Amino acid sequence: MTMFDTIKQIFDNEHFTSEPHQLYDPIEYTLHLGGKRIRPFLLMTANRMFGGEDSQVRNAAIGIEVFHNFTLLHDDLMDKSPIRRGQPTVYRKWDENTAVLSGDTMFALAWRYFLAQPSPRLQEILYCFNQTAIEVCEGQQYDMNFEQSDHVTIDDYMMMIRLKTAVLLAGALKIGALYAGAPEADIEHLYQFGIHLGLAFQLQDDLLDSYGDVAEFGKQTGQDIRDNKKTYLILKALQTAPQPLRDELAALFSSTPADSDAKVTRVRQIYDHLGIRQDVEEAIAQQFRQAQQHLDSIRLETPLKAPLQTLMATLSGRKK
Amino acid sequence: MTMFDTIKQIFDNEHFTSEPHQLYDPIEYTLHLGGKRIRPFLLMTANRMFGGEDSQVRNAAIGIEVFHNFTLLHDDLMDKSPIRRGQPTVYRKWDENTAVLSGDTMFALAWRYFLAQPSPRLQEILYCFNQTAIEVCEGQQYDMNFEQSDHVTIDDYMMMIRLKTAVLLAGALKIGALYAGAPEADIEHLYQFGIHLGLAFQLQDDLLDSYGDVAEFGKQTGQDIRDNKKTYLILKALQTAPQPLRDELAALFSSTPADSDAKVTRVRQIYDHLGIRQDVEEAIAQQFRQAQQHLDSIRLETPLKAPLQTLMATLSGRKK
Repeated sequence: MTMFDTIKQIFDNEHFTSEPHQLYDPIEYTLHLGGKRIRPFLLMTANRMFGGEDSQVRNAAIGIEVFHNFTLLHDDLMDKSPIRRGQPTVYRKWDENTAVLSGDTMFALAWRYFLAQPSPRLQEILYCFNQTAIEVCEGQQYDMNFEQSDHVTIDDYMMMIRLKTAVLLAGALKIGALYAGAPEADIEHLYQFGIHLGLAFQLQDDLLDSYGDVAEFGKQTGQDIRDNKKTYLILKALQTAPQPLRDELAALFSSTPADSDAKVTRVRQIYDHLGIRQDVEEAIAQQFRQAQQHLDSIRLETPLKAPLQTLMATLSGRKK
Repeated sequence: MTMFDTIKQIFDNEHFTSEPHQLYDPIEYTLHLGGKRIRPFLLMTANRMFGGEDSQVRNAAIGIEVFHNFTLLHDDLMDKSPIRRGQPTVYRKWDENTAVLSGDTMFALAWRYFLAQPSPRLQEILYCFNQTAIEVCEGQQYDMNFEQSDHVTIDDYMMMIRLKTAVLLAGALKIGALYAGAPEADIEHLYQFGIHLGLAFQLQDDLLDSYGDVAEFGKQTGQDIRDNKKTYLILKALQTAPQPLRDELAALFSSTPADSDAKVTRVRQIYDHLGIRQDVEEAIAQQFRQAQQHLDSIRLETPLKAPLQTLMATLSGRKK
C-alpha cells in the first residue's frame, strides 16, 4: 500500500460527526471533499524517513489536515469563493456564521488531534504547529493587503507565499521528523526543503494559470488575469516592462472589461514579449534547486529520501 | 495591590502590535477595550490558593483572556453586534474579513501564551484549555440554533449557557490550580464551583435585563424581550403559563412591533403574574448554593478561599 493509500484509508475511517450537528456537519463535509492530503503525506513521510511508525503520527497527520482545511474554509469565506474541489463552499452551502464557527471549531479540533498524539518532544511539536498557524494567518492578511496595494514588490510577494503556503508544508515535514526523534540539523534541512518546495509549488500555480494547457489544467486559464490577481507574473512584468507597456499593464490590471478574453490575450502578448514565462520557469527551477540542496544535506541513506525525491520530480513535471 | 490591580498592570504592559498591522491592530484594540478580566482573576486566584506564584501563570492568564476576547470578537461578528464595551466592534470599525482573520490569530496567540508558560502538568493544562475551547464553540452554536427553534426547554438552555459561559470560568480556575500542582479532588471541586458560579452569573444577566434598576444597570432594560431572545425567563414563563397566556407570550416573542415599550410592559406584566422573578431568583440562589458546597469541599484553610468567597458575595449582590 502506498503512503497515499494509507492516508486515504485514515481519512475514510475518520469522522467528525457530533452534536450540535449544525456545527459538525460542515466539518465532516469539508474533511471528506477529498484533496491531495499533501500535508499528511509530508508529515508521515518525514516520520518514516527517520524510522518512525505510522501509528505514532496518525493523529498528528489528521490534525495538520484539519488545520489546513480550517484555513481553506475561512479563506473561502473571506474571498467569497463559491466552489472548492468542485463542490459548494461551506459559507455557500450553509451560511457565513456557520463558516465562521465551524472553522473555529476545526482549529480547536486540530489541537485536539495533536494533543492526542504523545511524544517526548510534544512541546516542540506544538510550538512548531502554533508558530506555523500564526504565520499562515499573517500570510492571508498580506494576501488581502496586496489586493488593495499598487506597490507590491516581488520580495513582498515571495514573503507572502512563504507565509501563506510554504510554512505549512515545511511545518508538516518538521513535525513528522520531530515525532521520529530526528536530529536538529536534519530537521532544519527538511524544513527548508519544505519552504522551497512550497514556493516552487505556488509559482507553478501562477505559471499554469497563464500558460497551462487548458485540457490538462482542467480549468479555464487566465483567471488570475481576469481577477486582477497579483501573481509573480504580473509583478515581474511590471518590474521589467518599459514605460508605455508598464502603464498599459497597470491599466489592464485595474480594469474588469466585459470582454475578458481580449484582456487575457493582450496581457499574454505582453508577457510573451517580455519573456515572463522564462523568468518564472527560472524562478521555479531555482526553488527546486534549493529544495534539492537541502534534501541532499540530510544525513540519511539516499533510498530513505526516495519518497520526497519522487514527490519533487512529480511536482516539477506537473501540468495541473 | 489587589489581584485586579495586578491583572490591570499585566494587561497595561502587554501589547499585541506586530506586522502586518492590519492583522494586529484590531487585536491590540480588542485587548485594550477593558473588561472585568474575570477569567485571568480566576486563573491567578486559583493558582495563589494552592501556593503558586503569580509569575508562574502570567502568560496563561493573558492567554485565557486572549481566548475569551477571540470568542467575543467572532460572536459580535455572527450576532452583528455594533458595540462592545461602549466602543465599535471590530467588524464595524474595520470589516468582516478583518474580524474573521484577527479572531483566528487571537485564538492562535492564546495558544502561544499557554505554550510559553512551562509546567510539569502542561499537557493536562493544554488538554483542559482545548476541551474548553471546543465546548465554547458548541455553546455558541446551540445559542444560534435556539434562536431559530420553538422547542427549547429549560434543560436545553442550562446546557447551552454551561457550554457558552460556565465552562470557561471553570476552566480558568482548573488551569490555575493545575499550574500550582493542586490535588485532583480539589481541582474537581474548583471546576464545579466555576460551573455553578457561571450559571448563576448568566441567570443574573437574564434577570437584570428584565428587572434591573435602569440607573444601576446602566442600560435600557427589556432588551432581551425586544430582541425575542430566549432566556431563562421566557422559557420558564412558557413552561408555567396556562394555555391562553402561553399563546399570547409565544405571539409576543415572534413579533417585533414598532412600539416595543408596550411589548416589554405586557411581557413583564405576564412575568409578574406568573411569579417568574421569584423563580429565577430561586434558580440563581440554587446555583450559588451549589457553588458554595463545592468551595466548602476544597481542602484548604478558609482564609485561602476568601478571594473566591468575596467574589461570590460580590456577584450575588450585583445590580449590573
